[in-house]
Amino acid sequence: MEKLSSVTIKPLEKSIYLKPYTMHFTQNGTKRTWDLLRVHDSVAILIFNVTRNKLVFVKQFRPAVYFGSIPEQESQGDIDVQKYPAEIGATIELCAGIVDKALPLEDIACEEVFEECGYHVKPSMLEKISSYRSGVGSQGSLQTAYYCEVTDDMRVSSGGGVDDEIIEVIEMSVDEMKEYISGHNIKSPPSFMFGMYWFLHNKCKK
Amino acid sequence: MEKLSSVTIKPLEKSIYLKPYTMHFTQNGTKRTWDLLRVHDSVAILIFNVTRNKLVFVKQFRPAVYFGSIPEQESQGDIDVQKYPAEIGATIELCAGIVDKALPLEDIACEEVFEECGYHVKPSMLEKISSYRSGVGSQGSLQTAYYCEVTDDMRVSSGGGVDDEIIEVIEMSVDEMKEYISGHNIKSPPSFMFGMYWFLHNKCKK
Repeated sequence: MEKLSSVTIKPLEKSIYLKPYTMHFTQNGTKRTWDLLRVHDSVAILIFNVTRNKLVFVKQFRPAVYFGSIPEQESQGDIDVQKYPAEIGATIELCAGIVDKALPLEDIACEEVFEECGYHVKPSMLEKISSYRSGVGSQGSLQTAYYCEVTDDMRVSSGGGVDDEIIEVIEMSVDEMKEYISGHNIKSPPSFMFGMYWFLHNKCKK
Repeated sequence: MEKLSSVTIKPLEKSIYLKPYTMHFTQNGTKRTWDLLRVHDSVAILIFNVTRNKLVFVKQFRPAVYFGSIPEQESQGDIDVQKYPAEIGATIELCAGIVDKALPLEDIACEEVFEECGYHVKPSMLEKISSYRSGVGSQGSLQTAYYCEVTDDMRVSSGGGVDDEIIEVIEMSVDEMKEYISGHNIKSPPSFMFGMYWFLHNKCKK
């Protein structure tokens, strides 16, 4: 697992990633306000390696999950990493990425599959699962999910992300995945859970 | 649908709902920062009315989805509600609510089922589906999902939410739900999609 140190949490000053706004509006005659965020739309890819019948996921340290796992009264200033080790922030997710360039979503999805998991796939190999709205409470960005079958031959690098991304590629058999999602406290987002049950329902029919 | 008017979007000034922070940390020797939010944990309840074999959902205007559906360059200042009508922000979701009081999660879930959908249910009637991490990019809060079967007898009010909540209770047959989730651009969050495929996989076995 990650080596984590020198963790300090301070109120946000200025951010290029997180842009908070307040929306003022009148709904059915009543004046309301709502605080919200502008975040990028995203793509997610459910990868199934048919050479070895393994689902391919990414494991990574998520600062927001780490932060969200620390009680609010202890989550400002310096954090005790002995008490709150990096593991509490490690998630297992679908391969995914933000839409931050003017390319077709399928091209961005293929880039993410390559960068994060090391497989060379083409847009025509992607099956669209659906688009839905993430974070309806505060952000409402669009995420588009795809399904993609790969073979060992398509793996051209070990993946792991670009720049300062630190991503571990994780494989699970269908049985291992079933056991993982049957847990009661899962370090994965709902889009992952959606993907797993979609897979069981649509790709694993007896 | 909602009557929406006087929509203005301004940079966030001070919020009791949305608390942005920056986390500074050292991961495997590299100094990093991450912008994130403190948001409440939440509960979500998948309700199935067994008297009439209908799934029970909530439909509501979500300012964040409305905002996220407007191109960034047009989403500051006054918004043209002719061009961007309220419908673009209307979502269909599981009954849900934030954990903002010191009660067992099951009690909060029962309160939400009553307030939003009008059914009187007891904690012992809830089947835990799982807990998972919402919004792993910026918030990482914990959502706990339950399944609950209800009958018409348990419906003691029309629901619709409390305070200034404007919530419409929506029912779908299993076939209607299947058609809804087979769409390619769904105004629902991934937790809803997870719930639907969980239901199809676990409660609709042939």
